[in-house]
Amino acid sequence: YKEACAEDLHLDLSRGKPNREQLELSMDMFDILNSKSTLDTADGTDCRNYGVLTGIPEAKTLLGDIMNTNPKNVIVGGNSSLTIMYDIITHGMLDGIMGEKPWSQIPDRKFLCVVPGYDRHFNMTEHFGFQLISIPMLEDGPDMDQIREWVEKDPTVKGIWCVPRYSNPTGTVYSREVIEEFANLKPAAQDFRIFWDNAYVVHVLYSSESSQYPDILEIAEKAGNPDIVYEFCSTSKMSFPGGGIAGVAASPANRIDIESFLKYAMICTDKINQIRQARYFSSHNKIRRHMLKEASILRPKFEITEKMLEEGLDGLGIGDWTCPKGGYFISFNTLPGLADRVVELCHNAGVKLTGAGATFPYGKDPENRNIRIAPSFAELTEIKTAMHLLTVAVRIASLESMDEDKAD
Amino acid sequence: YKEACAEDLHLDLSRGKPNREQLELSMDMFDILNSKSTLDTADGTDCRNYGVLTGIPEAKTLLGDIMNTNPKNVIVGGNSSLTIMYDIITHGMLDGIMGEKPWSQIPDRKFLCVVPGYDRHFNMTEHFGFQLISIPMLEDGPDMDQIREWVEKDPTVKGIWCVPRYSNPTGTVYSREVIEEFANLKPAAQDFRIFWDNAYVVHVLYSSESSQYPDILEIAEKAGNPDIVYEFCSTSKMSFPGGGIAGVAASPANRIDIESFLKYAMICTDKINQIRQARYFSSHNKIRRHMLKEASILRPKFEITEKMLEEGLDGLGIGDWTCPKGGYFISFNTLPGLADRVVELCHNAGVKLTGAGATFPYGKDPENRNIRIAPSFAELTEIKTAMHLLTVAVRIASLESMDEDKAD
Repeated sequence: YKEACAEDLHLDLSRGKPNREQLELSMDMFDILNSKSTLDTADGTDCRNYGVLTGIPEAKTLLGDIMNTNPKNVIVGGNSSLTIMYDIITHGMLDGIMGEKPWSQIPDRKFLCVVPGYDRHFNMTEHFGFQLISIPMLEDGPDMDQIREWVEKDPTVKGIWCVPRYSNPTGTVYSREVIEEFANLKPAAQDFRIFWDNAYVVHVLYSSESSQYPDILEIAEKAGNPDIVYEFCSTSKMSFPGGGIAGVAASPANRIDIESFLKYAMICTDKINQIRQARYFSSHNKIRRHMLKEASILRPKFEITEKMLEEGLDGLGIGDWTCPKGGYFISFNTLPGLADRVVELCHNAGVKLTGAGATFPYGKDPENRNIRIAPSFAELTEIKTAMHLLTVAVRIASLESMDEDKAD
Repeated sequence: YKEACAEDLHLDLSRGKPNREQLELSMDMFDILNSKSTLDTADGTDCRNYGVLTGIPEAKTLLGDIMNTNPKNVIVGGNSSLTIMYDIITHGMLDGIMGEKPWSQIPDRKFLCVVPGYDRHFNMTEHFGFQLISIPMLEDGPDMDQIREWVEKDPTVKGIWCVPRYSNPTGTVYSREVIEEFANLKPAAQDFRIFWDNAYVVHVLYSSESSQYPDILEIAEKAGNPDIVYEFCSTSKMSFPGGGIAGVAASPANRIDIESFLKYAMICTDKINQIRQARYFSSHNKIRRHMLKEASILRPKFEITEKMLEEGLDGLGIGDWTCPKGGYFISFNTLPGLADRVVELCHNAGVKLTGAGATFPYGKDPENRNIRIAPSFAELTEIKTAMHLLTVAVRIASLESMDEDKAD
């Protein structure tokens, strides 16, 4: 550890940012449009001018393809799925969802958070004054018994955050059974909604992983629950983060409800980027081939991360971690009470990790165990160095705690 | 009129859409970036990846140049200035502006609307439950005495909609004196804000018009009122409507307040389009030259509109109209009580105009006189036909009303 401190490292495994090599994969997207291009859609809309509130058909087809849902379910937004979530929640707060009482008038409003989970989700609902309720993640999805208990008995529970495929940060894939259970919830509140953030749905790390995932909209409709879910995705981590297109898929009634406020907030979204992205990701096969190229860059970073964890900690019983098949994160657990100390030791040696607790509501991990590892941005050699340090830090922190135990 | 009805016209002068010839002017923007481009900003940010909540420096410089304000005042948004206004108002409604009481908790909240004005402004604040108060437009800006009376005495007045240069639809330019009076308001409410929508600030129709407009932010700061105004602009009507970049300029305290909610709503805006637009509109001179090209296409459309009005109505005392030096609209007034009849007569003959009343709060023109004419999108020959019909319709409606007067 002292050697590492002396090396003056500046390594960052804290955020799920694509690396430069991945970004290079999409550079030919900038050749899709040039000064001679026709920017009309198949139905004759000029993408260069005003119009079309919910997005062009080509972009609905692309996002429908990613989410494996009917393109007619899709409303195309701007560059950020997070912004669409934020807009829908402000709509719930101020106008009310589909005519229900505005959430701002329900002082004890609650939102369920599958943990460990995504800090930006939790922070958003905390900002809007929701009480955040933690629901533990199990092997094949969240604890559905706890979810049913909350959702079906308490009408102040208005939503739940889910990242169903390659969950952030555990990499968990919700099973078909779990999806069915979500679709068959009988919420106490008419305006309860599942926020189904499929941010990583086509972001496989292995070619053995299927290119498709069950369509919760169809399953919910069959369950007689068509309005229970909003599904989100974007092309940020397929093309350029912040430079892609995002969308929401929802039932006809939800779409009418969304359009009822969208029409006040804009004339239209950026149809030029919509047609650029749609022409680039022009088929299911094109998307799949592209995502396998992304995987070939990302996979070694995950493999070296897992290898270093195994070499440094396997069999010691002082840490466990996930080996995801897709997505952007590995979830690591220390012994109870040590996550913040491990993050501190790494930080002092020049390795930045996502803050301990960040994966829990209010930034507080009740067991102080979970650390999110984001290996996507760093170079392989950097990851190796950083992960070696992490394992050393875990051993130090574990030894320190055993010393304390003895001293007690 | 019967001849016109027989011709089966399908002409539309209802919305301020650029025409195809204008859009062609910017086509070489699609050659700015290609697969070999470097997308780093001058300060080393990779525009292809996450980061930079308030926009890249190059885009702040561009929008600052358009608004003639210091780039450091600018927060760059997405593609739509309307969306930034909407987001700020939702922030006022839910969080409160700079810590003041949320507007949703003020049942008799009010918003001032300069009339005639922009329907999307009025509809937005109506949607958020504001009472809309009409303030008449005079020769060099709105009636400042009435504004002072409302703003300085009534703390439930929270904002005012302004389009200061080439106002929609009258084409009025607020004078320096009017801007000074705005900057020197002493609002009863701490959280009163001027929504200064400079949508047409560089959109001149004549080269004799200055390329710059006074900077209200600087004037307000000198008046000891730095936080009183948000200024908005976009490159929609400079490049591609819906495909441009938009921004808000505001004081340091307002910017901190805006960032306090922006950080929950997004990771970042589309920096790729920011650098594309900034490299295209790379200097004040480049912007000016581009806008004069736009003017050379638009000016004949305004001139033929004014010529047809003059030929058809001059000296009859049954209509008056504006001859703007910039912007996208001509404002036409019939005799009191006839606007809806004129719009109906035109509609029945195949010429679509913005609905009578649309330029007033609640879609209701108390004098039923104002009609907004938007000549930008149509061809010259179409405008000539449509405007001839309009003058015929005005004469018919005026004669009808004189007959009624006689019958009384």
